[in-house]
Parts: sequence; C-alpha cells; structure tokens
Amino acid sequence: MPSPSSRTLLSALTVDTLPFGQYTVSKRELFGLTEHSYALVNLKPVVPGHVLVCSRRPVGRLHDLSPMELADLWQLATKVDRCLLRAFPDMDSSTYAVQDGPSAGQTVEHVHIHVMPRGPKDAFNLQGENDKVYDAIQDNERQCVRMDIPSDEERKPRTEEEMFEEAAMLLEIMDEIEREDA
Amino acid sequence: MPSPSSRTLLSALTVDTLPFGQYTVSKRELFGLTEHSYALVNLKPVVPGHVLVCSRRPVGRLHDLSPMELADLWQLATKVDRCLLRAFPDMDSSTYAVQDGPSAGQTVEHVHIHVMPRGPKDAFNLQGENDKVYDAIQDNERQCVRMDIPSDEERKPRTEEEMFEEAAMLLEIMDEIEREDA
Repeated sequence: MPSPSSRTLLSALTVDTLPFGQYTVSKRELFGLTEHSYALVNLKPVVPGHVLVCSRRPVGRLHDLSPMELADLWQLATKVDRCLLRAFPDMDSSTYAVQDGPSAGQTVEHVHIHVMPRGPKDAFNLQGENDKVYDAIQDNERQCVRMDIPSDEERKPRTEEEMFEEAAMLLEIMDEIEREDA
Repeated sequence: MPSPSSRTLLSALTVDTLPFGQYTVSKRELFGLTEHSYALVNLKPVVPGHVLVCSRRPVGRLHDLSPMELADLWQLATKVDRCLLRAFPDMDSSTYAVQDGPSAGQTVEHVHIHVMPRGPKDAFNLQGENDKVYDAIQDNERQCVRMDIPSDEERKPRTEEEMFEEAAMLLEIMDEIEREDA
C-alpha cells in the first residue's frame, strides 16, 4: 500500500503549526508532509525556490534521527528537489546543505536541510560566483523563520500571503509527483 | 541479523578500486563500506577530516537513487559523522553538502556527500568566516580526486601513503562504532 500523499496528510493535520526548534511554522507554509518529515517555504529565500526539509521530531542533529526517520527525511528531500525542478524549469541542478551543529552555522537546533534549485543562469552563476550561494544560506540560516529581529536590508522578508501562495503552488506539484509515484 | 561491518566488507572486496565518476578510487582510501555506499578520504581536504560519502552505483543525482540506496547512503554519512567527531575531539559540529548537478558546482557526475567536521576554533570559525568553508569545497570539488591538473598552490595534494594512513585510522573508529551499534 503506498504511503498517504502530502495533501492527504496535510488535510488530516489537526494542528495549525508545527515546531521548528524554538519557533513554530504555520501549516500553510508546508507543501510536503510524511510520517517523520515536513517541507516548508522560506521567509527569505536566497534563490527562488529555496526551501527547507525538516524532521518532525525536534532533534538537533542528523545522527540523532533513527534510520527510519533519516531515510524518510532524505526521501522527502529528493521528492522536494524533483518538485522544485518542475516548478522552476530553467533550473537543472540543486544545492543541498545541512549545517549540523553550532560550529557549522546552525542557528535553529532542529534538523533541517536547505534545498535550492540551481541553474546555469541563476543569480550566483551569472556572477561567476556559484559558491557564494553558501554565504547567502549562512545569512538565511539566521533568519529562516519569522523572528523578532531587525530585517536584513538586502532581502525583504516575504509576506505570509506570498509564502502561503508559494506553498500551495508547490503542493500542487508535489501532489502530481506523488500520484505518478504511487 | 546486523549488517556486515565496513571492515568485513572491505576485506571481502575483490577489486582494488571502485569507480567514482570518470575516476577510480583505491580500496585503501576507503574507511566505510555498505551494500550501496562507500566513504573515502580526500586528496585535498579543506578541513582536517573532510571526507566524501558516495553511492556505489554510479548515478549523477540524489533523486536517481532508489529509496534503499538513498537510505543506506545517509545512514553511512551519519555514521561517518560520528566517526569524525570521535577522531577529531575538538570538533562539535559537521557541515554536509551535496552539489547535485553541474549548476550547483558538481564536477564529478557521481552522487557524493561532502562531510566536514567543524569546531568553534576551526580555520574558518577562527577567522570569523564560518561560511567560507563552502568556497573551499567548491575548489575542492574540482580537485577532490587525483587528477592530472596543475596543483593548487595553497593546498598541497597529499601523498597516497598519507591518505591510506588516514583511511586506516578512520576505519579503526568506524569498526568501534559498528561494534557498539551491532
């Protein structure tokens, strides 16, 4: 029997928010949900489609997850990647990064994977600075959820409505992929 | 029944090299081996203990792996992380990165995860430039295996013997962890 789809699980979710370290994220920011993991859009994406994939159990480090939780997390991350490549047709690649622990730049102590669709002409590659995408995640890591800190001058936080719309658009594609895979 | 240990699988390996994209890596550079994945030391690590975890099946992208291969790959990566944190006791964190596709900086078209132990006083954090570790991976990505290209002035390629010694040291710790987990 195939696992229930993200859409089905999201509809069945009886809470309005999920924990993300010291923060909470709205159910309406999610576009992927499995038994052990969720995928959400980002307050200040460093490239269009920069999203996060998180464990549902709030642990700090990848090696704290059970084999089943870890498998589920990465299975969702690769499905998210397929979803992003379909949503952003000019992109042909993805950057995945996990800042696992404080000395690696982790600021929210809750397992999360950054997934970013990348293309030959994305902002970083156009400037010939492909690797600068990571400097940008580093900034983003400090502000990836709605926090009460002064806003970064260069990247304006998005409105809730913008974030909910993107999540709904990505959920459509996630649904398509899940129906094809079922 | 527990899976066979890396040491057992490495001893049983009947080939001297494994494929890594267009290159091959020596069995003696490996310190982790599972049914679907292997872990190897690096020609030009950007921090001490910077290693790679690869799929045994030579596919280009994370989303090309089967769910079982993907689960196995990340299970090995987190075991490698525990192994590194034990081998480098000043380190408390890890950076994981996958450059998945050419526009993300991938130069060897074969799934591989960069795993780097990180500490509050590592070279990048000491300079207050935690995120510069990614610029360094980017260079490393171009030269992570033995290639016939001019050597990078700043980081001297290591000798085979140095690499084999590090692999043997990490294999000892991998063995310890695998015996504890069994």
